[in-house]
Amino acid sequence: MTYEFVPQFAKMLRNLSGLLDKAQAFADQKKFEVSNLLTARLAPDQFNFTRQVQATCDLAKSYAARLTGKEAPKHEDNETTIEQLQRRIQATMAFLETIRPEDFKGWEKRQVLNPRREGKFLPGDEYAMHQAIPNFYFHLTTAYSILRHNGVEIGKKDFLGELKYRDL
Amino acid sequence: MTYEFVPQFAKMLRNLSGLLDKAQAFADQKKFEVSNLLTARLAPDQFNFTRQVQATCDLAKSYAARLTGKEAPKHEDNETTIEQLQRRIQATMAFLETIRPEDFKGWEKRQVLNPRREGKFLPGDEYAMHQAIPNFYFHLTTAYSILRHNGVEIGKKDFLGELKYRDL
Repeated sequence: MTYEFVPQFAKMLRNLSGLLDKAQAFADQKKFEVSNLLTARLAPDQFNFTRQVQATCDLAKSYAARLTGKEAPKHEDNETTIEQLQRRIQATMAFLETIRPEDFKGWEKRQVLNPRREGKFLPGDEYAMHQAIPNFYFHLTTAYSILRHNGVEIGKKDFLGELKYRDL
Repeated sequence: MTYEFVPQFAKMLRNLSGLLDKAQAFADQKKFEVSNLLTARLAPDQFNFTRQVQATCDLAKSYAARLTGKEAPKHEDNETTIEQLQRRIQATMAFLETIRPEDFKGWEKRQVLNPRREGKFLPGDEYAMHQAIPNFYFHLTTAYSILRHNGVEIGKKDFLGELKYRDL
């Protein structure tokens, strides 16, 4: 259940793309600039919506790159429109699609560096469980919450996406 | 990395307990009733803080119970105070501590029922990846965001907890 987070993160990014569509539709319907949503935040000293989307993409990308040794695409964090954020999401999903289960060989023992903590690392298993996965969902949920708080009509199903229930 | 979510959820519940302490301290400092925070929500048709905490506990409990066949403790969802929510969190953590790695034997193929969808199930692996884990972090992050939005002084470290960086 380590590689499996790669397609799961891709699924959640598809859901995030759907949230952006709903944000745009809400702005169109209410006749306001969608940038009002892109710059919205839940607290004055917290990332705004755009930064939450960027962070969500980066956490998915880093998870796939740092646990496999693959090079992740670089992004400038200069998105200012919905279309640009959608392209960021698409680029991240395209990278995730290049990752194969066998790329994760030896992931538990990989030394995952943190650019903000020079000379330090987390073992791969702790990085995945204690940092990357909770942080991915943290920023995704916060992006969702900013839209929800501002009246965009979204619900849990938009967040989770489809669940394929079977008959007993 | 399936059993491993049990101690991880326990860690996150400890962090949630710390968030409740900070909420109480903030209410004391600003001299308002902490119930104002417990009943706060980010949108009028969304769960309030208390329900977010209950849901977070229940998702951790259900993950551990449904993938192992163990019986989870029942809770009445009648908490109205910080102390009662703290006891709910402690009871959930105590249940998680009873779970052993070997209890997860065969988890991928378990048929996980959903009380809201009679006669339907998700295979264990899809339940874990597509429902339980994202949903746990969804409600935990939303609880955090409600406090953050209301001015409680909390940050990412309170959410993630300690990360044990090693020297290279």
